Amino acid sequence: MPVSDADREEIRSRLSRIEGQIRGLKRMVDEDRYCGDILDQIHSVQQALKSVGRAITRNHLETCVTDALRSGDEQAAQESYDEIMGLLEKEL
Amino acid sequence: MPVSDADREEIRSRLSRIEGQIRGLKRMVDEDRYCGDILDQIHSVQQALKSVGRAITRNHLETCVTDALRSGDEQAAQESYDEIMGLLEKEL
Amino acid sequence: MPVSDADREEIRSRLSRIEGQIRGLKRMVDEDRYCGDILDQIHSVQQALKSVGRAITRNHLETCVTDALRSGDEQAAQESYDEIMGLLEKEL
Amino acid sequence: MPVSDADREEIRSRLSRIEGQIRGLKRMVDEDRYCGDILDQIHSVQQALKSVGRAITRNHLETCVTDALRSGDEQAAQESYDEIMGLLEKEL
Repeated sequence: MPVSDADREEIRSRLSRIEGQIRGLKRMVDEDRYCGDILDQIHSVQQALKSVGRAITRNHLETCVTDALRSGDEQAAQESYDEIMGLLEKEL
Repeated sequence: MPVSDADREEIRSRLSRIEGQIRGLKRMVDEDRYCGDILDQIHSVQQALKSVGRAITRNHLETCVTDALRSGDEQAAQESYDEIMGLLEKEL
Repeated sequence: MPVSDADREEIRSRLSRIEGQIRGLKRMVDEDRYCGDILDQIHSVQQALKSVGRAITRNHLETCVTDALRSGDEQAAQESYDEIMGLLEKEL
Repeated sequence: MPVSDADREEIRSRLSRIEGQIRGLKRMVDEDRYCGDILDQIHSVQQALKSVGRAITRNHLETCVTDALRSGDEQAAQESYDEIMGLLEKEL
């Protein structure tokens, strides 16, 4: 991933926050918290992960995908299309 | 959450696995792994979280929601409907 | 579907609007419109369908699911849980 | 949309099938069919629409997006990235 040091640091710190949220979830389960609240928290983590995924995807489009399409290599282009379609399929 | 000890242990251990996956993601970012692979791993975590969410939702339907609907309390029933619609809205 | 006449009329008219949107989509394809605009229109139809689905789901929860859970019939209850989980699975 | 005549005809006929499915949905509502069956049918239409959207998206990537990225025009490139991110956002 040809990503700048600043971006990598940002992604790392977002992942650390998500790790903390997962630990928070385990505590909620231990404390027998209301399922609705636990589900809300799971949703928050999903949104946070989606947001990290989006940042990485944008970077990926701007670098690898753009390089692949500009290279004129038809197979590399097709692989990029497949990859983007795969991201749509996964709703990432 | 009126959940059995066995179910709670199962949910806890799934969350611990997810925590490990997040740490794995941080390592992948540190090691400058290919974005496509990182995105695949994010997708795996999303699926794992969704699966935990589904288990909790099922338990919630079988306990709190069922109790609310059987109580005959119309407001409690409406809150249960709202809650289920909210889960659909969040695609949890 | 134990739905009031007014609700049924409302759902019918929403479906007619969606039918019109689909015809509009065919015209856009015939006229070689920009793919981005066609995709926006497809997204609008998806949202309209989702909204009809949500209205039917809410009605379903308030009637059939509630009856099933109140009946005390354990198998009917399990089928209702399965149905709701299925709706979540389909992201309807 | 720089799409071949064969592809346009294919997309048109898929949209006509979807139009027929919507009419089928209206009949189901008129006939007071079980909500679960109506919701299943709505889900089928959603899937059919998603599949048309995917075909158009793939074509869009192979033509407009590729042209934009190869043109060397940085603004056109950014608009393409925005567009792809928008498709992901809409889960199209």
